[in-house]
Amino acid sequence: LTARLFLECCRALSAGSVHPHRVFSGIQPTGVPHLGNFLGALENWVALQNQYPTVLYSIVDLHSITQPQDPDQLRSNILDLTASLLACGIDPEKAILFQQSQVSEHAELAWILGCMTSMPRLRHLPQWKMKSGQKNEGSVGLFTYPVLQAADILLYQSTHVPVGEDQVQHLELAQDLARIFNNHYGDLFPEPPFSFILTGSTRKVKSLRDPSAKMSKSDPQTMATITITDSPEDIALKIRRAVTDFTSEVTFDPETRPGVSNLVMIHAAMAAISVEEALSQARGLDTGAYKKLVSDAVVQRLTPIRHEIGKLRSDRAYLEGLLAQGRKKARELAAPVLAEVRHRVGFS
Amino acid sequence: LTARLFLECCRALSAGSVHPHRVFSGIQPTGVPHLGNFLGALENWVALQNQYPTVLYSIVDLHSITQPQDPDQLRSNILDLTASLLACGIDPEKAILFQQSQVSEHAELAWILGCMTSMPRLRHLPQWKMKSGQKNEGSVGLFTYPVLQAADILLYQSTHVPVGEDQVQHLELAQDLARIFNNHYGDLFPEPPFSFILTGSTRKVKSLRDPSAKMSKSDPQTMATITITDSPEDIALKIRRAVTDFTSEVTFDPETRPGVSNLVMIHAAMAAISVEEALSQARGLDTGAYKKLVSDAVVQRLTPIRHEIGKLRSDRAYLEGLLAQGRKKARELAAPVLAEVRHRVGFS
Repeated sequence: LTARLFLECCRALSAGSVHPHRVFSGIQPTGVPHLGNFLGALENWVALQNQYPTVLYSIVDLHSITQPQDPDQLRSNILDLTASLLACGIDPEKAILFQQSQVSEHAELAWILGCMTSMPRLRHLPQWKMKSGQKNEGSVGLFTYPVLQAADILLYQSTHVPVGEDQVQHLELAQDLARIFNNHYGDLFPEPPFSFILTGSTRKVKSLRDPSAKMSKSDPQTMATITITDSPEDIALKIRRAVTDFTSEVTFDPETRPGVSNLVMIHAAMAAISVEEALSQARGLDTGAYKKLVSDAVVQRLTPIRHEIGKLRSDRAYLEGLLAQGRKKARELAAPVLAEVRHRVGFS
Repeated sequence: LTARLFLECCRALSAGSVHPHRVFSGIQPTGVPHLGNFLGALENWVALQNQYPTVLYSIVDLHSITQPQDPDQLRSNILDLTASLLACGIDPEKAILFQQSQVSEHAELAWILGCMTSMPRLRHLPQWKMKSGQKNEGSVGLFTYPVLQAADILLYQSTHVPVGEDQVQHLELAQDLARIFNNHYGDLFPEPPFSFILTGSTRKVKSLRDPSAKMSKSDPQTMATITITDSPEDIALKIRRAVTDFTSEVTFDPETRPGVSNLVMIHAAMAAISVEEALSQARGLDTGAYKKLVSDAVVQRLTPIRHEIGKLRSDRAYLEGLLAQGRKKARELAAPVLAEVRHRVGFS
């Protein structure tokens, strides 16, 4: 959290927002989420839909193609993610759940904002520095990704954006573009800068095979990651094999004992109890016995979700219909904002 | 014309096109065109609409904002240009005349194509090297401009694109992206590469104040440029003041006598006669007397156009209605292509 951002958040909070609260967040369609997504973002999404009057959750497929994608895989990932979000508790009556590429205004606003973004501004963003290094410079889409992200947010005049710390610099770009637009064409986007809701900072689920790394979908070790549709047997096996250390007692100290602490965190979160309560349940158990407790909590929490995902996945028409509804609602909010932008820029 | 492009044009011509012929061209909304636009592009546009079954002419306002624009000016420029194109002979029954930003598919396809374009590929294009140098690096929009141009062309599966020589490298990018897409997702865009129709190479109208430079809207010397709505008096004055040289005889030799040759070219083009015929009319006249002949030809050709523009300009609703019709027709062609792209990429 940069100092500048911190100050702006304080200012925004003390000033009170002049706009109605609107939450926007996006998730890439990588298919069924894993436990890290579930605890890091999705649980928070479910909570936010009950706290704010307008909440938009977007499956950001336009972002996903900044990296190579297999089309068939992408198509089924989008529907699998839709099913998963619903099963995890996203309520389409409370939150607008939609597929980004179905709302043309995202790409349109991204073009307009790109004309207000300087090249050096993008070159220093972490997304580009990180991914382009791995991939021989990457595509134009990867480079301009944060501008599309700014468009996603501003299109709905969002006031609250839940993000991980790795996204803070991208959010700052969105704020800068809101300011540049407002200064040039008159107020339209929330200012003083909209707030961030930092997520995942307290709940970073670690790899079960290497507790120094984040749990990740792309981890080559299948035992490292629990997907929320894993069978009870797989969950039990993965947790039984989870890397801990040579101390058998269960304690919570993420710095010195990341492996066992990761399990305690998962246990507490999945059983909806405090870390203290989890530790008290672990009293007298060695890590081996404790793992059984953890996997029971995970299985218990995920079983109804897994069943619901299975049911929803088999009803493709329902999922597509639901995304079509989400599209309609999203466009109802996006179209007037883009129309206003178009007018102010001089297109109409 | 690069050797590679030449070979491709030959191949395309000899193979015959498998696609129905479709012409696409765009023009930036800088307001009422000048004589250079009129003779360099618009006369050709009028001819093309009679030669090809499907012809699209787009007022490319999304491109125009890659440079700073005054919104009020841009708004009126778009309508002035629409009026001018109609007055110059663009027939909305034969050509689809539309405003780029009204067809959301342009920005949407540009995003998708941007994800297939490497950063170094854009860095070497002349547009960027030239304009970014003048303007301290320029915006992301200026940098990605050629990708939007490729989207403009491919969205209509265009087979013929009239361009000036300065645009040839941008067209090559469009061809490359067509190939990359086709290779990756199956044939969709015209290949072997679509043709270019080079325009303006024989008819480059020069500044009346500096015949070594192109006639340009942005020329600070008002006497350098004839706008097609200039009054007969202004036209006569500008041509009377046109820079020639110290030889009074009228000859045609653009290399050694660019000033008077420019006038001969304008005369011939506006009177729809050959250069030889123009020279024979000039026989016995010194350049001073000849200028009267030239301005008469320009005035005679432009007077009905000026009146028509005046009439059309006063009917804003008509112009807007006409652009709305053009939008509808353009979308009828664009929507199925984008739907197919979306499907192949994996969005649907």
